[in-house]
Amino acid sequence: MNREKLQEIVGRIERGELDLVTALAELDAPHSVAELGFARIDCARQSRCGFPEFVFGQNKSALQLTGIIREIRKRKQPVLVTRLKTAAARPLLKKFPDAEYDELAGVLIIRPKHQAEPAGKIVIVTGGTTDLPVALEAKHTAEICGCAVELLADSGVAGLHRLMAKSAMLRQAEVIIAVAGMEGALPSVIGGMVACPVIAVPTSVGYGASLGGLAALFAMLNSCASGVTVVNIDNGFGAGCAAARIILSKKSRKT
Amino acid sequence: MNREKLQEIVGRIERGELDLVTALAELDAPHSVAELGFARIDCARQSRCGFPEFVFGQNKSALQLTGIIREIRKRKQPVLVTRLKTAAARPLLKKFPDAEYDELAGVLIIRPKHQAEPAGKIVIVTGGTTDLPVALEAKHTAEICGCAVELLADSGVAGLHRLMAKSAMLRQAEVIIAVAGMEGALPSVIGGMVACPVIAVPTSVGYGASLGGLAALFAMLNSCASGVTVVNIDNGFGAGCAAARIILSKKSRKT
Amino acid sequence: MNREKLQEIVGRIERGELDLVTALAELDAPHSVAELGFARIDCARQSRCGFPEFVFGQNKSALQLTGIIREIRKRKQPVLVTRLKTAAARPLLKKFPDAEYDELAGVLIIRPKHQAEPAGKIVIVTGGTTDLPVALEAKHTAEICGCAVELLADSGVAGLHRLMAKSAMLRQAEVIIAVAGMEGALPSVIGGMVACPVIAVPTSVGYGASLGGLAALFAMLNSCASGVTVVNIDNGFGAGCAAARIILSKKSRKT
Amino acid sequence: MNREKLQEIVGRIERGELDLVTALAELDAPHSVAELGFARIDCARQSRCGFPEFVFGQNKSALQLTGIIREIRKRKQPVLVTRLKTAAARPLLKKFPDAEYDELAGVLIIRPKHQAEPAGKIVIVTGGTTDLPVALEAKHTAEICGCAVELLADSGVAGLHRLMAKSAMLRQAEVIIAVAGMEGALPSVIGGMVACPVIAVPTSVGYGASLGGLAALFAMLNSCASGVTVVNIDNGFGAGCAAARIILSKKSRKT
Amino acid sequence: MNREKLQEIVGRIERGELDLVTALAELDAPHSVAELGFARIDCARQSRCGFPEFVFGQNKSALQLTGIIREIRKRKQPVLVTRLKTAAARPLLKKFPDAEYDELAGVLIIRPKHQAEPAGKIVIVTGGTTDLPVALEAKHTAEICGCAVELLADSGVAGLHRLMAKSAMLRQAEVIIAVAGMEGALPSVIGGMVACPVIAVPTSVGYGASLGGLAALFAMLNSCASGVTVVNIDNGFGAGCAAARIILSKKSRKT
Amino acid sequence: MNREKLQEIVGRIERGELDLVTALAELDAPHSVAELGFARIDCARQSRCGFPEFVFGQNKSALQLTGIIREIRKRKQPVLVTRLKTAAARPLLKKFPDAEYDELAGVLIIRPKHQAEPAGKIVIVTGGTTDLPVALEAKHTAEICGCAVELLADSGVAGLHRLMAKSAMLRQAEVIIAVAGMEGALPSVIGGMVACPVIAVPTSVGYGASLGGLAALFAMLNSCASGVTVVNIDNGFGAGCAAARIILSKKSRKT
Amino acid sequence: MNREKLQEIVGRIERGELDLVTALAELDAPHSVAELGFARIDCARQSRCGFPEFVFGQNKSALQLTGIIREIRKRKQPVLVTRLKTAAARPLLKKFPDAEYDELAGVLIIRPKHQAEPAGKIVIVTGGTTDLPVALEAKHTAEICGCAVELLADSGVAGLHRLMAKSAMLRQAEVIIAVAGMEGALPSVIGGMVACPVIAVPTSVGYGASLGGLAALFAMLNSCASGVTVVNIDNGFGAGCAAARIILSKKSRKT
Amino acid sequence: MNREKLQEIVGRIERGELDLVTALAELDAPHSVAELGFARIDCARQSRCGFPEFVFGQNKSALQLTGIIREIRKRKQPVLVTRLKTAAARPLLKKFPDAEYDELAGVLIIRPKHQAEPAGKIVIVTGGTTDLPVALEAKHTAEICGCAVELLADSGVAGLHRLMAKSAMLRQAEVIIAVAGMEGALPSVIGGMVACPVIAVPTSVGYGASLGGLAALFAMLNSCASGVTVVNIDNGFGAGCAAARIILSKKSRKT
Repeated sequence: MNREKLQEIVGRIERGELDLVTALAELDAPHSVAELGFARIDCARQSRCGFPEFVFGQNKSALQLTGIIREIRKRKQPVLVTRLKTAAARPLLKKFPDAEYDELAGVLIIRPKHQAEPAGKIVIVTGGTTDLPVALEAKHTAEICGCAVELLADSGVAGLHRLMAKSAMLRQAEVIIAVAGMEGALPSVIGGMVACPVIAVPTSVGYGASLGGLAALFAMLNSCASGVTVVNIDNGFGAGCAAARIILSKKSRKT
Repeated sequence: MNREKLQEIVGRIERGELDLVTALAELDAPHSVAELGFARIDCARQSRCGFPEFVFGQNKSALQLTGIIREIRKRKQPVLVTRLKTAAARPLLKKFPDAEYDELAGVLIIRPKHQAEPAGKIVIVTGGTTDLPVALEAKHTAEICGCAVELLADSGVAGLHRLMAKSAMLRQAEVIIAVAGMEGALPSVIGGMVACPVIAVPTSVGYGASLGGLAALFAMLNSCASGVTVVNIDNGFGAGCAAARIILSKKSRKT
Repeated sequence: MNREKLQEIVGRIERGELDLVTALAELDAPHSVAELGFARIDCARQSRCGFPEFVFGQNKSALQLTGIIREIRKRKQPVLVTRLKTAAARPLLKKFPDAEYDELAGVLIIRPKHQAEPAGKIVIVTGGTTDLPVALEAKHTAEICGCAVELLADSGVAGLHRLMAKSAMLRQAEVIIAVAGMEGALPSVIGGMVACPVIAVPTSVGYGASLGGLAALFAMLNSCASGVTVVNIDNGFGAGCAAARIILSKKSRKT
Repeated sequence: MNREKLQEIVGRIERGELDLVTALAELDAPHSVAELGFARIDCARQSRCGFPEFVFGQNKSALQLTGIIREIRKRKQPVLVTRLKTAAARPLLKKFPDAEYDELAGVLIIRPKHQAEPAGKIVIVTGGTTDLPVALEAKHTAEICGCAVELLADSGVAGLHRLMAKSAMLRQAEVIIAVAGMEGALPSVIGGMVACPVIAVPTSVGYGASLGGLAALFAMLNSCASGVTVVNIDNGFGAGCAAARIILSKKSRKT
Repeated sequence: MNREKLQEIVGRIERGELDLVTALAELDAPHSVAELGFARIDCARQSRCGFPEFVFGQNKSALQLTGIIREIRKRKQPVLVTRLKTAAARPLLKKFPDAEYDELAGVLIIRPKHQAEPAGKIVIVTGGTTDLPVALEAKHTAEICGCAVELLADSGVAGLHRLMAKSAMLRQAEVIIAVAGMEGALPSVIGGMVACPVIAVPTSVGYGASLGGLAALFAMLNSCASGVTVVNIDNGFGAGCAAARIILSKKSRKT
Repeated sequence: MNREKLQEIVGRIERGELDLVTALAELDAPHSVAELGFARIDCARQSRCGFPEFVFGQNKSALQLTGIIREIRKRKQPVLVTRLKTAAARPLLKKFPDAEYDELAGVLIIRPKHQAEPAGKIVIVTGGTTDLPVALEAKHTAEICGCAVELLADSGVAGLHRLMAKSAMLRQAEVIIAVAGMEGALPSVIGGMVACPVIAVPTSVGYGASLGGLAALFAMLNSCASGVTVVNIDNGFGAGCAAARIILSKKSRKT
Repeated sequence: MNREKLQEIVGRIERGELDLVTALAELDAPHSVAELGFARIDCARQSRCGFPEFVFGQNKSALQLTGIIREIRKRKQPVLVTRLKTAAARPLLKKFPDAEYDELAGVLIIRPKHQAEPAGKIVIVTGGTTDLPVALEAKHTAEICGCAVELLADSGVAGLHRLMAKSAMLRQAEVIIAVAGMEGALPSVIGGMVACPVIAVPTSVGYGASLGGLAALFAMLNSCASGVTVVNIDNGFGAGCAAARIILSKKSRKT
Repeated sequence: MNREKLQEIVGRIERGELDLVTALAELDAPHSVAELGFARIDCARQSRCGFPEFVFGQNKSALQLTGIIREIRKRKQPVLVTRLKTAAARPLLKKFPDAEYDELAGVLIIRPKHQAEPAGKIVIVTGGTTDLPVALEAKHTAEICGCAVELLADSGVAGLHRLMAKSAMLRQAEVIIAVAGMEGALPSVIGGMVACPVIAVPTSVGYGASLGGLAALFAMLNSCASGVTVVNIDNGFGAGCAAARIILSKKSRKT
């Protein structure tokens, strides 16, 4: 912004023609919002939050998704589209040949050309095999944010030795994401084994009174292991972002 | 109603042959109810409420819808059918060539021939792109009632500058309809920025513990911005009517 | 704000020492926030929203309440404290001799010295006698905002003639607040009788499966009368503010 | 049962070889249970309850249904199968040419050859057109039990005059079944108009916070009209049986 | 109402000065509503519904209750106040020496001077001893309406022989009210034993996942015994009224 | 029962004067039901279920409890009263000097004079110290039924080594009762360690989203350890009975 | 494990190079976990719990299932896959010719070559015909664990004689599994008739306020028959395992 | 542990007299569990998790608390007792003169003699004044763990400028704990402003449909700001621990 524009605004504010908030917002908008009509992309999120605006793919039309992805790429930001069914991914994979699609996770990614060395060490543990899609959503999210991720599947508490055999691995993690459905006991057990932050992800795996994952969610919120935090049901994406916040803000502070 | 009929009724009431309520209802029915057997259309709603009876399209057969629309048109009232799937709209569009159908909103409209100048200024804001169908249902409803509507999509609170850049627009509204899913924080933020009435519409956009929109609904009911009111989940129609009640009853009083 | 201060800020922003948002916020804070440590009063709410910040009395100590009230009075704004038990009101009534307290409503008020002629016409209807405290909270709130209010108690739908006998009164209202517990049918019936905005207030009156007012709340959200809006359970305060938003923004536009 | 058999049992009981409960059950079973393996039909229900065992059609195979219907017909009892989709009804209509099927209600009926004059007078009222399937299920049920039924559709409380115009009809009913979705206010209004028993049937008609009919259910349970009773959501069948219990036990006592 | 008054109204309606509804309501109000300000008593309920307006005592002040009772007695109607704690009953018992108070039921009654012979035969069965207060509320209500009532306590399904030993008594009933907490199985078992109407009353007796009676309520709504109807949790009053509707409307038809 | 009585009954059944059910029930009642008016004690439960009828103490008056206890003792059965507050226990302890009262568990016991050697081996484990009252209720119940019980407190999963240090003890149990609040993970971990039956008891220990124990309840119902069964929240009594059923029916078969 | 390996570990622990937990887990893992990447099979479950790890088939791919089944067979353990749709079963039946599939139950089984004589006597009772799939899942599970099972369908409480006619059969059971939807009263009635352990299985059979089986679940948790335990909704598998735990641990103790 | 003891164990394992798990647990127990009978304190938590076992004070007796605190102090660990009412704190303050008690937070603390320099920078923000107790619980917890904490009260989203005026402070935080009741929008707005980890704490502040804090909880779980994690309602303690995990594990890695 140049000096003259600023001076003019100062003048209008002095004369009461403009209030400060409106002045600010109007000045800022062209730089921070990409206006597409049906979408108004938050271009400044990367600078504010450490990662750019990602795209929730569910119920968006091919046209909308194409428009949004183009806009993000224009600004050289990485692209992550979650909750994208195979049929919806197909046209996008044609339009964007450098895009990758993980069907199990329902995630489409376009990586930046030059990605820095991945930071930190996130370990993602699942209670069962059927929790994998959620775990993979978390993995892709954390990786596109620039973090290193390791995955340990099917380690539920009904066979504790499976988890204990990996206690060395767990103790070396900087953040652990514990993904589990049914009774959601996994984060409690892990939380009692390690000192690092533990992010619990309840999944909708189960039936009957699992209530679509609410049983696991409530269990995790009531974890007797102190300092476990929780994200929404099946929200691997949110867990990936939360882990990235921990790793990245730590990293930025180190330098 | 002619004098003789009234005199006769008075006589019967005097003689105890008829009670007042029944007398009234019987006299009134032919004028205020259109009897179709499967439906009994409330023809007097326009005069009582300021807008006519609109049609909830879901689970009604083509035959029922045709019959109801015919009856409404006979009385020169505008037609609005909500929750109408594309397949259900098609036969109606053939039968009623002046009908318009908005597929995204699931709304079919037959406008009156001579519509007055739209009144007031309603602004509809959405938290995200996927809230658009609900917002459009609200828009069509308010417009068919005779109101002027402006739409501002994708202005969720995770990137507040998007909303603030439009604060001038918000302050000029006479009514604001705030449409949002997920955590439903939009009406709270808007309610703190403006003096006009704010109608909150929770949507079922989200997953996991969004509980089909209940999370947003409860959040909006608990808004810390005083004087925000709420309608049912995904109820764009109800919000449109509520906004119309405010604009139209204000207008009628001005004259 | 003087020119020099503004110029200095412009300079710092140009040199990248300060971003716009922080600049704005810092400039604005002394005028718009009264800092009490335990509370940070929003002094600019009156100018933004048409009514000042009101005080939620529940669980606040006498010391906190006294501090907050003093701060509001300093700025010549009216005082409204809701959810205030008799024992908590007593010390405040001693400290502020011009305060009034309505025990049934749990509301303490200090009116401004010169109050303008009340505007508009709000009618508050209750389903039963036990809904009165909520109705009175709404009444006090709307009145302190500058509105005229009329109250019609105990007019539930099990004896419809009680409501119909007052239909003339209802049709003359500019806004109706319908307060009811149990099955919450009152706003549906009123909504079908009038054209003005209807604000529904569910109350926790009832027992068993009234679920503390949730039964009435859900009923009101599903009202078959189009365009009824709803506030939280027992939230007379919110309904009063919402009605005031309608009346006051209408009034301000008239001039 | 002949004298000898009874004497023998008495003897065994005396000698402590048999306890009374087992004796009774064994004696009674061949007369009162039709054993099909996958089903054990309660043949004595007609004599105990006034109506025979009816068949819940949902999730039963064609084979199961055919077997059950044959068994019932063998005993000259009327057949009522509810929750039967069109595809499931088709093979049964072929096998049982005297069967009738109402697609809207999802009900299959085989009437007894000689049905007595229908008793009593049940009036079924619905809030809207989309409540008709539930109302028809109630109608068929009550009729097969031997009751006379009249149907009044689409009389919701947002246009009260539609109901009041029929107050004479309502007052002549011996039992009223009030069927409504959304806010479920209909039984409260009717319950305040008449002296006869009112059975409320909540329907799953509505969306958002109608919670699949729970909103209407809870409203009806909290009806401010005293003495309204309620059946399960969409349970037209249950309402029909309950009305039949009232009509038939009254009738049996008159004689 | 005299002829002149009616003629005058007819004239005003003809001249468009008055609409029919308002005319009706205004004419009717003095006869059918007793206006107390805080309460508007429905004096016509007895003639419409077969029983007068009863009083929900909870949260009403002594002053309010006294005013309401006086008004009811003025019109020679029986008085029933429910949910009345001992402390609240005491001043009323002093003011109204002919009042009776049942502490266990929380019910105050003033019987009419000349009560007719009780009609019908209602049997109230409870699952356990702790369901007695609800059962007694039902008993007093049905009796003040003019019905004969018999009570059978503590007959839960875990010891079925207790119920079966009374099967003769159950089969002679015209209406059965089944009161139970916990799993609420009692009405299902009784509903399978008898032909008369069965009204189920869930109670809040139980703990943990009885959810304040919701467990019993939902069980009763899902009863596998056809034609059982349900009232609200702990709503002995509602069950009493519902039973009275059945008995009284039957009786009135017999004559 | 003598021969004559039986012969008379046979005769009446033959003549159609009596049906079998009523006959049976009437014959049996004096032996199996102790009629107290407010309570009808199931005296045959011991012979049917292996343990006698126990008494739920909550909300029962001193008079009722005294009457019930006297009746049980008359029949030489052991007495167990649960959910008994200290104040309610005091008068009973005076009346029945051989009664013992455990205040923490809220349980009053009168042991039979000659109790057999306790059978089996039940181990009760709790997640935390505050789960002790529920665990003790289970202990007293199982003991009065004749079982041997061992208690291991405060062994929650956040410190797994506390549980593992006792794995030998767990493996020697015939039944394990796992009592836990919060996230309720204890039975899952134990269920994966042992082969014997595991009965899970959720407790209401916790706050916020523990939902009064529902979080633990749902977790336990969804246990990933196969074959864990669950009782109601805080239902130590039920767990004690269930364990006794296992131990006692096993014992009876051995002989 | 040989002496040298142990000696080496002891040495490393002494020198502080290794902690005991990690040592243990690392030693044990090759014997007790079969690592497949997407799954980590608990091979030691049979020795710990008495039955091997079974497979939850839902949402697992053919590839995953084939891999898991192969691994289990390699170790000569029986195979049980639950919740397996017909389409998913077909490829497995081709790959494993000795597999059996029960379509109604959705269960695939590969029996061990030499199965011991079935132990104990489990009786499974269902409330209705539509509860059969859940009952069959329980039956297959208990049988693969080595238990003898008998099935009694359609014995709901609305026709109690159906159950009583089988009381001899019920009294001879060592464990009873009671499977019921709707109001879930069956286990309460059975629990009052027998002394053996009763495991209640709520099913999702029903509609409206059956809440997908929650109504039956809550009823069963609140059973007035003491000592009934409950498993998750539709969890025939869990009930089968629980019954097997009782039978098998009893059996092992007898020897 | 000495060599001989280990050798002996190795021998017993070789001879099959002892399994590895039991061996491990028995060896470890005296070092890691303090056995008090009613409590079994996890002495090794500090070394595993970075902070010692803290004490949930609610429902623990003075005797229990004294015993536990003594045990913790013996091991030179800091003491934190949460949810401690004033009356329960008093005897402890007498017994432990170096204890401090914060009545508003309900927290008792005994700091270690030599506490290290506090690490990191945690900022705790509250939506309103009444959220302070929860915020203070978080503050004490994080501080006793060795972290530096700053508190910013009453910054709810209805007056956004209050928050923005502090954006510099928020951007300097390493972890932010956002504490809010009602609609719980605060973490969404903050999450969009900063890059550091944001831990959301819903509070039970609010009424009606705030559902004891569930409304805020669900809103926070559905936050549109990516990467916000959530703890239980009113769980300031959990948020403090979670923040400490982030700060401390970061710190330990730096060195």
